[in-house]
Amino acid sequence: MVEPSLPRGMRDFNTAEAIARREVLAVVEEMFRRFGFSPIETPALENLNVLYAKTYGEESGKEIFKIEGEDAALRYDFTVPLARFIAMNKDTPLPFKRYQIGPIWRKDEPQRMRYREFLQADIDIIGSSELISDAEVVAVAAQVLDELGVSGYKILINDRIILNGVLSFFGVPNEKNVEAIRLIDKLPKVGNEEVIKGLVGLGVKQENARSLIEFIIKEEDNDEKLNRVEANIGIKEEINKLRELIRLIELYKVKGDIVIDLSLARGFDYYTSFVWEFIVYDENGKRLPTIVAGGRYDNLIGIFLNQQIPATGISIGIDRIMNVIGSSEETKSYARVYVASIGNVLDYSLYVANTLRAAGINTDINVTKRNIAKQLEYANAMRFRYVVIIGEREQSSNKLKLRDMISGNEELLDIEEAIKVIKGE
Amino acid sequence: MVEPSLPRGMRDFNTAEAIARREVLAVVEEMFRRFGFSPIETPALENLNVLYAKTYGEESGKEIFKIEGEDAALRYDFTVPLARFIAMNKDTPLPFKRYQIGPIWRKDEPQRMRYREFLQADIDIIGSSELISDAEVVAVAAQVLDELGVSGYKILINDRIILNGVLSFFGVPNEKNVEAIRLIDKLPKVGNEEVIKGLVGLGVKQENARSLIEFIIKEEDNDEKLNRVEANIGIKEEINKLRELIRLIELYKVKGDIVIDLSLARGFDYYTSFVWEFIVYDENGKRLPTIVAGGRYDNLIGIFLNQQIPATGISIGIDRIMNVIGSSEETKSYARVYVASIGNVLDYSLYVANTLRAAGINTDINVTKRNIAKQLEYANAMRFRYVVIIGEREQSSNKLKLRDMISGNEELLDIEEAIKVIKGE
Repeated sequence: MVEPSLPRGMRDFNTAEAIARREVLAVVEEMFRRFGFSPIETPALENLNVLYAKTYGEESGKEIFKIEGEDAALRYDFTVPLARFIAMNKDTPLPFKRYQIGPIWRKDEPQRMRYREFLQADIDIIGSSELISDAEVVAVAAQVLDELGVSGYKILINDRIILNGVLSFFGVPNEKNVEAIRLIDKLPKVGNEEVIKGLVGLGVKQENARSLIEFIIKEEDNDEKLNRVEANIGIKEEINKLRELIRLIELYKVKGDIVIDLSLARGFDYYTSFVWEFIVYDENGKRLPTIVAGGRYDNLIGIFLNQQIPATGISIGIDRIMNVIGSSEETKSYARVYVASIGNVLDYSLYVANTLRAAGINTDINVTKRNIAKQLEYANAMRFRYVVIIGEREQSSNKLKLRDMISGNEELLDIEEAIKVIKGE
Repeated sequence: MVEPSLPRGMRDFNTAEAIARREVLAVVEEMFRRFGFSPIETPALENLNVLYAKTYGEESGKEIFKIEGEDAALRYDFTVPLARFIAMNKDTPLPFKRYQIGPIWRKDEPQRMRYREFLQADIDIIGSSELISDAEVVAVAAQVLDELGVSGYKILINDRIILNGVLSFFGVPNEKNVEAIRLIDKLPKVGNEEVIKGLVGLGVKQENARSLIEFIIKEEDNDEKLNRVEANIGIKEEINKLRELIRLIELYKVKGDIVIDLSLARGFDYYTSFVWEFIVYDENGKRLPTIVAGGRYDNLIGIFLNQQIPATGISIGIDRIMNVIGSSEETKSYARVYVASIGNVLDYSLYVANTLRAAGINTDINVTKRNIAKQLEYANAMRFRYVVIIGEREQSSNKLKLRDMISGNEELLDIEEAIKVIKGE
């Protein structure tokens, strides 16, 4: 006999979890549509040359699941497939506000709250370089969290152009810029000393590396941070853009705090200016894995067309949000009513079940030869709200017995009366 | 520059197609829930030894997409993963009425209306050997088609036990039974002569092979067919089961005709008795690829537990249904309203857009520096129903101009008045 098992880093979602996930997805999709985003769907598999056309960054490239004997692999994000889609659908009207929801696969080391398949919901605005488009994508994600009741989240924002200015100011050689950004991206995980060591390895003086880290992690309010960057490093125009972006996001009245984080880098190489990350904390104040992230990437979408198409976007990690808000183990089924039966009453039971269904009530029916006690035990385990009991007496009188599974009360009713009770009318 | 392309047999769904697909999926899920089915989700990747524990049939095994360097592959259906799930979640209350919707991957030869990734919606009832459970799964699928307005479909039904009786009666050696069933499964595709040739190759006499094919394809009504099998071959008990199953399905009052097809085999080896296939025809009366299929499989679910767990189920091919009902190219966006702007009115435009959104109206907003003519051109291309036009006059008077994109009429309104018009109140 084969021992049943799952591939490493993969997981199932049982009924309660799958129902909870659907509730979250329903809110996510409703908000996306509310803000004027519409879906496309690309396949799970992409050609390798497409995935590698713009590398995600060296390390990420290794994390792609390749298909044996084909030049194809599972998608690693929705952004490169979107660029490919735009190139293959040149008649798409721009700006294009699209969303895509589905699994993403990454062959990284599985760990707590990190799986090799995870559900992601992306929105992107293609074809606009206006700040309002950045504000829109950040605001939608925040309103999704507000709608889901995720409280205490912070919206961290930075700007790669500003970060590059800081890196240059502290003596990071231009050609080491990408590597330095990847190092800084790991700051929350590996700590200051590791990153300083890495920067020194890139040719930065020890004291400059330390000053750089201190500069970007210094805790101040947003205005103080931007004033400090402006006073020390300049790049006034970009700083004003970031000021205006934050002002625009605030106009949406989202609940999360907007926090400039000068150390925020994001892993992917393709970001060209703004980057954002939404973070939450556990009950002990410990930072949990990022639940929402993205940024502006003006050079990726046009890569298959040899032209520049500005773009901005954000990804919502559905599984990570599920971990934050939790799922109730109470909801074992979408069925609200269970039709139990005693004796030879199959046709009438089915008639009752189908009448309830036609009235829009999610209804399960006994499909076993179990006695009524066992059927009620099952109904209880499944946490159905009502059980309809059909015996020969009910059949001959064209009635049913309705049992309220919370109070335990039973009533003999017509089908129409039962429908009213069940619907709470 | 990399030429953008898709892997062989893969396709994208643009916005209009993705919206049409969602409309179909919404109906499918609503009906599944209405009948008391609840979802689980298993990952796209399964271990190879799980997928091969019960082969799908020799040829199918070759069509599995394997992952390079891992003992894993993309799922080939939802049924084997369901068996694995049941074995790994032994506390699942039985009967278990579960649904799963998602992509399935098969590395077969791509052809018209066949892709290597396709969207499938499965329902199964695990843990019941009662005919009512078979009737339920067939009826749900039929009601889905009825709800979607798919007309003229036929529900073909057969029983492997009856087919085996027929095969044995016409001299197919017992040990060649599985091979004979695979041959007969290809009957609609390859024609009578090919199958007769194949049967002769299995050791059946030419004249018997021909009589067998004539016996199973003879056109008669359901009663005549079952009476003929009973008279010639016996297996009365199984024939009565099939009679009762058809009677039960008829109680659901589904619109499709129920047709016993003694030649219906289904490809997978795991079916143990009933099999069904829903078919439709094009406007020229040509049979289209099967849109719904399934059967009873009493030996598969328990395979990882070394015990017998009865099961029955059905798969709805969403992409094939989409091909039958078609999708309107009219719906390019979920947004109903587009907020256009003239001049320096960003904050007020955003205020108007967010007020419409808060009222539950799907609203897009201009994120470009385009002039109003270009904005209206875009709104027209996107087929938005209304355009709100904000200029400095509207801003200073706290009003908006509402343009009906069908009539072309424009009105100067308060936001609250506009909301009423847009909502049709």
